[in-house]
Amino acid sequence: MIFSSDNWAGASPKVLAALAVAGAAGPLPAYGTDEITRRLEARFAALFGREVDVFLVATGTAANALSVAAFSPPWGQLLIHEEGHLAVDECGAPEFFAGIRTVGLPGRFGKLDAADLARRLASWPVGVHHGKPAVLSITQANESGRLYTTDEVRALADVAHGHGLALHMDGARLANAVARLGCDLAEITWKAGVDVLSFGATKGGCLMAEAIVSFHPEKREELAYRRKRAGQLISKHRLVAAQFDAWLDGDHWLDLARHANAMADRLAAGIAASAAARLAWEPQANEVFVVLTPTTAARLTAAGARFHEWSTAGLAPEDRPAEGERLYRLVTGFSTTEADVDTFLATLAVA
Amino acid sequence: MIFSSDNWAGASPKVLAALAVAGAAGPLPAYGTDEITRRLEARFAALFGREVDVFLVATGTAANALSVAAFSPPWGQLLIHEEGHLAVDECGAPEFFAGIRTVGLPGRFGKLDAADLARRLASWPVGVHHGKPAVLSITQANESGRLYTTDEVRALADVAHGHGLALHMDGARLANAVARLGCDLAEITWKAGVDVLSFGATKGGCLMAEAIVSFHPEKREELAYRRKRAGQLISKHRLVAAQFDAWLDGDHWLDLARHANAMADRLAAGIAASAAARLAWEPQANEVFVVLTPTTAARLTAAGARFHEWSTAGLAPEDRPAEGERLYRLVTGFSTTEADVDTFLATLAVA
Amino acid sequence: MIFSSDNWAGASPKVLAALAVAGAAGPLPAYGTDEITRRLEARFAALFGREVDVFLVATGTAANALSVAAFSPPWGQLLIHEEGHLAVDECGAPEFFAGIRTVGLPGRFGKLDAADLARRLASWPVGVHHGKPAVLSITQANESGRLYTTDEVRALADVAHGHGLALHMDGARLANAVARLGCDLAEITWKAGVDVLSFGATKGGCLMAEAIVSFHPEKREELAYRRKRAGQLISKHRLVAAQFDAWLDGDHWLDLARHANAMADRLAAGIAASAAARLAWEPQANEVFVVLTPTTAARLTAAGARFHEWSTAGLAPEDRPAEGERLYRLVTGFSTTEADVDTFLATLAVA
Amino acid sequence: MIFSSDNWAGASPKVLAALAVAGAAGPLPAYGTDEITRRLEARFAALFGREVDVFLVATGTAANALSVAAFSPPWGQLLIHEEGHLAVDECGAPEFFAGIRTVGLPGRFGKLDAADLARRLASWPVGVHHGKPAVLSITQANESGRLYTTDEVRALADVAHGHGLALHMDGARLANAVARLGCDLAEITWKAGVDVLSFGATKGGCLMAEAIVSFHPEKREELAYRRKRAGQLISKHRLVAAQFDAWLDGDHWLDLARHANAMADRLAAGIAASAAARLAWEPQANEVFVVLTPTTAARLTAAGARFHEWSTAGLAPEDRPAEGERLYRLVTGFSTTEADVDTFLATLAVA
Repeated sequence: MIFSSDNWAGASPKVLAALAVAGAAGPLPAYGTDEITRRLEARFAALFGREVDVFLVATGTAANALSVAAFSPPWGQLLIHEEGHLAVDECGAPEFFAGIRTVGLPGRFGKLDAADLARRLASWPVGVHHGKPAVLSITQANESGRLYTTDEVRALADVAHGHGLALHMDGARLANAVARLGCDLAEITWKAGVDVLSFGATKGGCLMAEAIVSFHPEKREELAYRRKRAGQLISKHRLVAAQFDAWLDGDHWLDLARHANAMADRLAAGIAASAAARLAWEPQANEVFVVLTPTTAARLTAAGARFHEWSTAGLAPEDRPAEGERLYRLVTGFSTTEADVDTFLATLAVA
Repeated sequence: MIFSSDNWAGASPKVLAALAVAGAAGPLPAYGTDEITRRLEARFAALFGREVDVFLVATGTAANALSVAAFSPPWGQLLIHEEGHLAVDECGAPEFFAGIRTVGLPGRFGKLDAADLARRLASWPVGVHHGKPAVLSITQANESGRLYTTDEVRALADVAHGHGLALHMDGARLANAVARLGCDLAEITWKAGVDVLSFGATKGGCLMAEAIVSFHPEKREELAYRRKRAGQLISKHRLVAAQFDAWLDGDHWLDLARHANAMADRLAAGIAASAAARLAWEPQANEVFVVLTPTTAARLTAAGARFHEWSTAGLAPEDRPAEGERLYRLVTGFSTTEADVDTFLATLAVA
Repeated sequence: MIFSSDNWAGASPKVLAALAVAGAAGPLPAYGTDEITRRLEARFAALFGREVDVFLVATGTAANALSVAAFSPPWGQLLIHEEGHLAVDECGAPEFFAGIRTVGLPGRFGKLDAADLARRLASWPVGVHHGKPAVLSITQANESGRLYTTDEVRALADVAHGHGLALHMDGARLANAVARLGCDLAEITWKAGVDVLSFGATKGGCLMAEAIVSFHPEKREELAYRRKRAGQLISKHRLVAAQFDAWLDGDHWLDLARHANAMADRLAAGIAASAAARLAWEPQANEVFVVLTPTTAARLTAAGARFHEWSTAGLAPEDRPAEGERLYRLVTGFSTTEADVDTFLATLAVA
Repeated sequence: MIFSSDNWAGASPKVLAALAVAGAAGPLPAYGTDEITRRLEARFAALFGREVDVFLVATGTAANALSVAAFSPPWGQLLIHEEGHLAVDECGAPEFFAGIRTVGLPGRFGKLDAADLARRLASWPVGVHHGKPAVLSITQANESGRLYTTDEVRALADVAHGHGLALHMDGARLANAVARLGCDLAEITWKAGVDVLSFGATKGGCLMAEAIVSFHPEKREELAYRRKRAGQLISKHRLVAAQFDAWLDGDHWLDLARHANAMADRLAAGIAASAAARLAWEPQANEVFVVLTPTTAARLTAAGARFHEWSTAGLAPEDRPAEGERLYRLVTGFSTTEADVDTFLATLAVA
């Protein structure tokens, strides 16, 4: 009954097997010039239907911050939802990597809206006194477990590009989004106007596998230098490449994401049917936000369930828990079992 | 016959086995609050004979640059051998992480000398126009495959501390040094005056396992914040912790290092006996610097040997290759076999 | 009829005279070790009733950003009103100088409220994922021409200190505030809990004279190094010191500020009495915010008046101009004349 | 007898007069949009025989570091003489402003040699592990009081450009160089390949007047943003513009420089003729390096002379003082009188 986060799990057996094989293989050139990395790059090209530049790094924070740094001058501004991971959970990494100022924008369910963004940018103060918006970052699936449709991404990209901003997508849970939307990677990313993508495989079934995927070859040199300078160029590159490669092989990544999503659906359906809890809003990926009384939450915890209370600071008034209630986040993953979900729901029913 | 670098290898079977077990284990708290990391921390404390603060990171570059950043103000200066890895091979990481200015100092065989350092610091310009020496960094074993004895470390630490500098040790190949010197970790590090250590296990037998070991508890918070902010806080911490733990268990790390050193000795002995090559200087760990004609080097390469030509820019005049000769570096590792060495030497003999 | 800003003026005759004398004086030691700077430092000590550390710099941006940098670690957060100068008009200087993340807070009339701040800080997310609030900055007189009373400053300081934040005061128009409040400098600054102050004399009657005044001797070295490193250590220090000294001499600074405030009062009274305009809110220093129709504004401009339209983005709903109206800012200064004001009001009356 | 530095003087009467007029003038737009700055910009264009971008700043450190930052990526390297001001006297400003690594190169009399530079760059390690040389900076007149001829500047520019580096000229004493060489500004700067220039008027006769002059219009926006963000955009721009304008008017700057140079010549001739001192090397601008015994130096100081002992660390062996001697620097300026020089020489003769 671990619903704390999808980074509490280990890795999928298939990923582990590939890692074991790669780790036991003989000598391979270091720093990403090996054949496993080459194979992975070819796989990325096939998945995206075009050449892309792939930079493997150690964390989503690094993927996000390096992406932003490569697409903004130091005097730029990063526009992002005020609850975005880069804005609130990465300890000022954009300021460190890019020098950039982070500007949080509001939006229901953690999403930015293209029309609202257009209105803001129309009267945005720009110039040497103010700085200059340079990068728009959106999270897919986002921090509230919600999705941007391809049309929504494209609308945001159009507004961003129209004002000279690049569009970054934080795809720490992109697999869950793609699995749910049934779109392909190309459609929801570069074809919709994404300029640079943080593609995360760690939460989805690897132990550590994060990639910056750039759709702008002219940024290749900059990203290569920035990665090394930031201590993110992993010497035995096979470690990451082999995991990512196995994860992407034969739709494994989508199978794992579909399972996580299905477990979230099962959980949501049970909560919707429960008298002791209610959904804060409809989940769309693998994160379920639920409103409970602290008493109920404590009873679930006592029974072994693990999950986090969540901040309501950014919620629209209509989405706030009532007096005496609180907001909690439940995250499912590739290793969540039906038994985990059912035990949780049974405990809830008793509560 | 791969002597390119000790980061071309995979990982030792024992490390891989531990990684497989950890990866397949059930849910564990993220970000280093798991039991494997706890166990590793206890192991570090035992090895060093005291409480230490351990921060696992993805690369040696990150370990080095974060260490320096935590022990220097932005207007500080990093004093380091002019051939030191931090000075020439990390793409300005100290400047990026710490804001610091890197100042390279000369010294034979890549080593700094305490008396020379004392002379320099005695008349070092300090003040707001110049900045202020803040960190001395030494590499153990160093970039020329040479060692600092415990007395030499202590002498450098005394000079550094006497002028208000902290002493950082880049221990990417610390295992090889400890194995050769037969000292213990405590003696050669904090007891000799090292303030903060980059302890690398990647080159020594893991796929990716680097640690900052700080002997100053008052730096704990700073290092924790800096690590996260730099995108170096790995979420599924078990990945690194399990490898490091297995590597340190039961002297495995020393066994691997002893083997690498023995292979270097075997190589050096053969070269010393050869008419077609000579040792540039006596190796002390797992790196052998050899002087060859380019013709000989090409013949070895054609036979499948892999190794790098090395810069002679920093060499003392008496250590320079003669006209028509060049300097090459051969690195052995935990997976180097006697057959690798003997085939190389046989090829050399023919050449 | 120039009400654009108080930095459009030249300098007061007394300041200019002192500058001429200092500029024609013989050789003086550079970099702030001269006798004029010594005299100024003594004057500051007398004014504040204690020893203070004074660092003269070229701009308010530098004074603000260096102050923040010296009182925050790079992973800190700067809490400031969302309309604060440091937040919106200094091009990311806090991010550049300090690495810090800037977090804007709301508050009516550009002011922060101690009770609101206490509520926010009580549940502020702190830790390696989030960063850490480090500095609270308030502007006195603020960007809306409003003042903090000594009690209000103290209340904010108490909340800030209670949560480990330092309190910075941006005093680009501190003279106007002190002149209006009738307090003394010590009362409204360090005795009320201000840790570091940007004290500006440029807007108040000098050509260029900005000082960081630190009440923490332990920050002296850091500020000295940071100032030089930022290119803010002016070599012929007499340039700034002589201006500041003359400005502070014999209550000249307060006389100039009283005049500017009186001109603002005269302007405000006339606007309050006018049918063609209304005060957006009661002015308290030398900035008058007025609501006009664009037609009226254009007519004033055509008559030679100069002033800026102002953003209403941060206004509380009750303070917003009505449909068809806009917000404008009028700034008076030491050189504003009654004729300037009366001509403006007469033009307004005709309009 | 003040020979400490040319920044100990005040300003020339003509400059002071212009400053007084500008300071007493009525309101002018702030931040460099005023008519005095416009006039100065036109004057610069006339002097350089082309359009240039001029950015006035507060210090030479800021001019240098902003120039370097605008012409280098953060992972770049600044190549500069190891005794260059940016390398040893600006407290790590290049690292702060640009993120860049500073690499000091040797060269006699503080000068870099094109052939030597070409040799070095031919085998310079470039790539993500090492970084990338990005800017070459030379000082004119340099820190040893020596000059680069137009041909020497062009030769260095050709080597730099051939390897993708921009050429920066630190012209804190450019007036002295131009006065001595009898060249024009265009010839010795952009026509010889200089990409960006720090043009200093402070040492030459103003109180504070430093300009970045860029010959690359595509850097205009970047320099404008960087200047503001660094707290170097002075609000009452007339302060600097008026000084610079008066200084450049009617060859005043060259007249002042010619005087300073003549005083250096007079000093050098006297020293050359003295038995108690000798020239360390032939001066070419307004700095005279002299070898004295400490006893002689003390006697001069006792008589009221002021000058600094100078480091011999970077000297070629053949230029080092003998046992018992030391190196001192004497700087003349626009306000140095023949009486100053003659009294010094008379004192020396007695000594």
